[in-house]
Amino acid sequence: MLYQPFRDLDSTDPEQFERNLNRLDRKFDVMTELGVDLILVCSNASADAVADMDELATQLRAAGELADRRGMRIAYEALAWGRTVDLWQQSWDAVRRADHPAVGLCLDSFHILSRSSTIDELGEVPSDKIFFLQLADAPHKDMDVLQWSRHYRLFPGEGAFDLVDFTAAVLGAGYRGPLSLEVFNDVFRQSSPVRTAIDAVRSLGALEAGLDDALPRQRFDAAFVELSVTPTNLTTAEHALSALGFRQSATHRSKRVTAWTQSSATILLTVTTDAAEDDSSALAAIAFDAEDPTGFAASAEGLNVSALPRVVRPGEADLPAVAAPDGVSIFFVSTEEGPLDWRRDFEPVPPTDAASGVGITAIDHVSVTAPFDRYDESVLFYRSVLGMRTEEVAEYPGPYGLVRSHLLRAPEPSGFGVALDGPLLRRGKWTPGVQTPQHIALLTDDVLATLDALPGDAPILRIPENYYVDLRARLDLDDEFVERLRRSNVLYDRSPDGEYLHAYTTVIGSQVYFEIIERRGNYRGRPLADAPIRMAAHVAARRGRTEK
Amino acid sequence: MLYQPFRDLDSTDPEQFERNLNRLDRKFDVMTELGVDLILVCSNASADAVADMDELATQLRAAGELADRRGMRIAYEALAWGRTVDLWQQSWDAVRRADHPAVGLCLDSFHILSRSSTIDELGEVPSDKIFFLQLADAPHKDMDVLQWSRHYRLFPGEGAFDLVDFTAAVLGAGYRGPLSLEVFNDVFRQSSPVRTAIDAVRSLGALEAGLDDALPRQRFDAAFVELSVTPTNLTTAEHALSALGFRQSATHRSKRVTAWTQSSATILLTVTTDAAEDDSSALAAIAFDAEDPTGFAASAEGLNVSALPRVVRPGEADLPAVAAPDGVSIFFVSTEEGPLDWRRDFEPVPPTDAASGVGITAIDHVSVTAPFDRYDESVLFYRSVLGMRTEEVAEYPGPYGLVRSHLLRAPEPSGFGVALDGPLLRRGKWTPGVQTPQHIALLTDDVLATLDALPGDAPILRIPENYYVDLRARLDLDDEFVERLRRSNVLYDRSPDGEYLHAYTTVIGSQVYFEIIERRGNYRGRPLADAPIRMAAHVAARRGRTEK
Repeated sequence: MLYQPFRDLDSTDPEQFERNLNRLDRKFDVMTELGVDLILVCSNASADAVADMDELATQLRAAGELADRRGMRIAYEALAWGRTVDLWQQSWDAVRRADHPAVGLCLDSFHILSRSSTIDELGEVPSDKIFFLQLADAPHKDMDVLQWSRHYRLFPGEGAFDLVDFTAAVLGAGYRGPLSLEVFNDVFRQSSPVRTAIDAVRSLGALEAGLDDALPRQRFDAAFVELSVTPTNLTTAEHALSALGFRQSATHRSKRVTAWTQSSATILLTVTTDAAEDDSSALAAIAFDAEDPTGFAASAEGLNVSALPRVVRPGEADLPAVAAPDGVSIFFVSTEEGPLDWRRDFEPVPPTDAASGVGITAIDHVSVTAPFDRYDESVLFYRSVLGMRTEEVAEYPGPYGLVRSHLLRAPEPSGFGVALDGPLLRRGKWTPGVQTPQHIALLTDDVLATLDALPGDAPILRIPENYYVDLRARLDLDDEFVERLRRSNVLYDRSPDGEYLHAYTTVIGSQVYFEIIERRGNYRGRPLADAPIRMAAHVAARRGRTEK
Repeated sequence: MLYQPFRDLDSTDPEQFERNLNRLDRKFDVMTELGVDLILVCSNASADAVADMDELATQLRAAGELADRRGMRIAYEALAWGRTVDLWQQSWDAVRRADHPAVGLCLDSFHILSRSSTIDELGEVPSDKIFFLQLADAPHKDMDVLQWSRHYRLFPGEGAFDLVDFTAAVLGAGYRGPLSLEVFNDVFRQSSPVRTAIDAVRSLGALEAGLDDALPRQRFDAAFVELSVTPTNLTTAEHALSALGFRQSATHRSKRVTAWTQSSATILLTVTTDAAEDDSSALAAIAFDAEDPTGFAASAEGLNVSALPRVVRPGEADLPAVAAPDGVSIFFVSTEEGPLDWRRDFEPVPPTDAASGVGITAIDHVSVTAPFDRYDESVLFYRSVLGMRTEEVAEYPGPYGLVRSHLLRAPEPSGFGVALDGPLLRRGKWTPGVQTPQHIALLTDDVLATLDALPGDAPILRIPENYYVDLRARLDLDDEFVERLRRSNVLYDRSPDGEYLHAYTTVIGSQVYFEIIERRGNYRGRPLADAPIRMAAHVAARRGRTEK
């Protein structure tokens, strides 16, 4: 579709410009061999760039005449770091003045959106003057735009730019050519090309769905989260759930699966015998209770997400399921009676004691560790397949390296969250005990009351004393309140909009732990500064366990 | 030595400042428990920062009075991204005006050198006003200074700053306190802490040697480069050396090692039987011919580089050797008769035919793949242990990911080079056939004549036709000249100062290949844009070999 790039065409030195035209003519030889008739000429970034707009237009026109003689066309693009021309409006000005049918525009979303250029004036550009469209998303980065462009571009839908809005504007201006992905990314460069190609196609599919206003907008909530453990960990997991106020509410009719419930929170506990290690535990699945579960499954299939093959026995619910790139299975279920009601496969267990919970009201979010080379793909998965939105993008220093964290949430009112955590770089051989932590965060209205209601042997993570000494000094808190937090091993953070109080359990099996959260006011995001404390406390707890 | 950091002390709101003083007082509680009496207060980076210098000094003095009552002192530091104070000169102005014995300066090389601040005025600061010194090096980066500071700092001697000059200036101003390493680095965070600590101590040792003008300044050249192959590869390696015009000039008296010579270039070929794979090949060692080999070895030991244990038989030369972080052994030898003359262990082979070489004059450089988490340590090793200097720092896109490349050279006249190549990030599971390439670059005065002199079966790497089509179009070269290059599979680059012509061999065994270089004029560095071409051609050659 396009031969690219041709750099530094124009020149303040007439002889150099002649040599550049000659170089262009040679490129036309190559293009003729390849059967391509469109070349991208990007704005000059060298010291030799022509600053005078009329002169630039004259040179562009000369190049257009040469192209025309060879049956070629030139798509002129404003590099975000061009010397004279670095905004698309300037490239349009140059093309307009060049006034030659073989000279048009190439629009690249990164070059335009990275400079926060408006695209309002796109409507003034005749549709036959937009020769090519290149699309790339990117995360917000406060850095040199050339480095940003060459190392951090993402597929549309994976970053912070609004590619739907941008593409709609270009299509609105009458462009009908290809949507080309122009993505330079250090991680993608070294990822599996097959996987990357599927991710790219999914990105285009989601973009097209966004343009057609056809992305999922269903309300959904977590019907259950499934925790899978080996027989070795079963007692520990059952004890943890029981201590956190969950009650065994149902038993699977044919599998070693039990359902544990408290208020609207349901956790399935599955015993697996084919785990890699004796000690394995995993956040195996999330089931989403949706208005139209099969609609979700169909749109996932449309986005090249493969359905998970499952063994369904006669009479059991055949629940649509897909695999998220982070390894978690996603089920689409219903809680209304019918074939997709997941509870069909379970036998209810009548309440046997007076236990009525400890105040847990719901599952707020889960976190999983996204592999280094599937991180951005995972973000796109939750955004495009489920229609989740990013609430927070952050990074924090853990004791074993920096951690990227991306929190996505389902539409209100459920607001169910999935957090993707992962190292910025691959870890070396010197790695922590828990390389791929996962956790289930439970909500309460009063974390101190909930902690008080727990039995004495609840596996609550002990927070070191010096956290509280520092907390008091840092936030200028009341001594009595800090002492109250300390006694219950509750961590605390404050923002201008609210407060966040939370406690953790120790790690169950190889990688899963629980968090109990109370949010006061409008605290958004998570208190990520507490994460290193939690990690260090987990290491200390693990060492204590080993030493016993 | 120092409790840190205390952020955002000053405030435009008097009540907030009172709360900040209270927060400071709480930190003094913690410091009392820890037995620390010095706290770092960094310049305010928040919107609340005091802009008026007199007011800032007044608040600093109030903090100093509080500190004094608690038996503490405050080291005030200009963050490179502070709101009012972001240069060390401003921090000194504030401290001078605060005029309190408990308030002094903290100087941090990164905050100062990243802003290109001069340190000429340091002599005006009374020595007892410099309370603390923090040292960090860094690579040149065109990016947001906060991100640069938090992710890319290096130990002194590993980056682009002149830490010897900087530290000398601070010591010249009378500072006699500790030299503290203040290094934030994403890779170091996840590296082995033991290895990182040794690297840090080496960095301080090299810095002290630099201050005493005691770094190695010996002239040295490569006496030989040792190529180690399995018996499987022996014939291939011998054929390659022979085809490149090398003559077997000597045989080791007790080991399966032969010496191959052409002009001043010597390559040892060692047969190893304990390699990991049947196909293994490796650039095993470099021997440096130095005026004072034992002096090199002693200074290496002083920098915590362990001597390599070796098996020496009676009568054999006991050559001092150390292991470079990239895995290559470094020998310190002599070519003058005596105990360190490496040739003692070899029996010369008299010339048996009329072969007189193909014009190779010397080994220009070798390249090795430095592991991801030992890259910066490797740079420091060659700079500090051998006194090599950086000629070029670059990165280039390979077909399997970006590659960092750092070329170091010995002092003139030898100018022998070691290039460290390595992926910017660890590769994923999808990796190339040759993960850790190594190569030996040979010099000639006339590469086309050298290529013409090679036998028909020399293992020269075939360069694809389209490289030459592109070359002609790109550099506007004469057709006949390009055809001459193409026929000999020679790659070409041009800079304003000179030209670089070079050819490659295929890969011998698992990872080693040769390059033949002709440099015309003053071409500096290497034509890195050719690297992806070479990689793709190697892949094609490997596939061809497999298909046979």
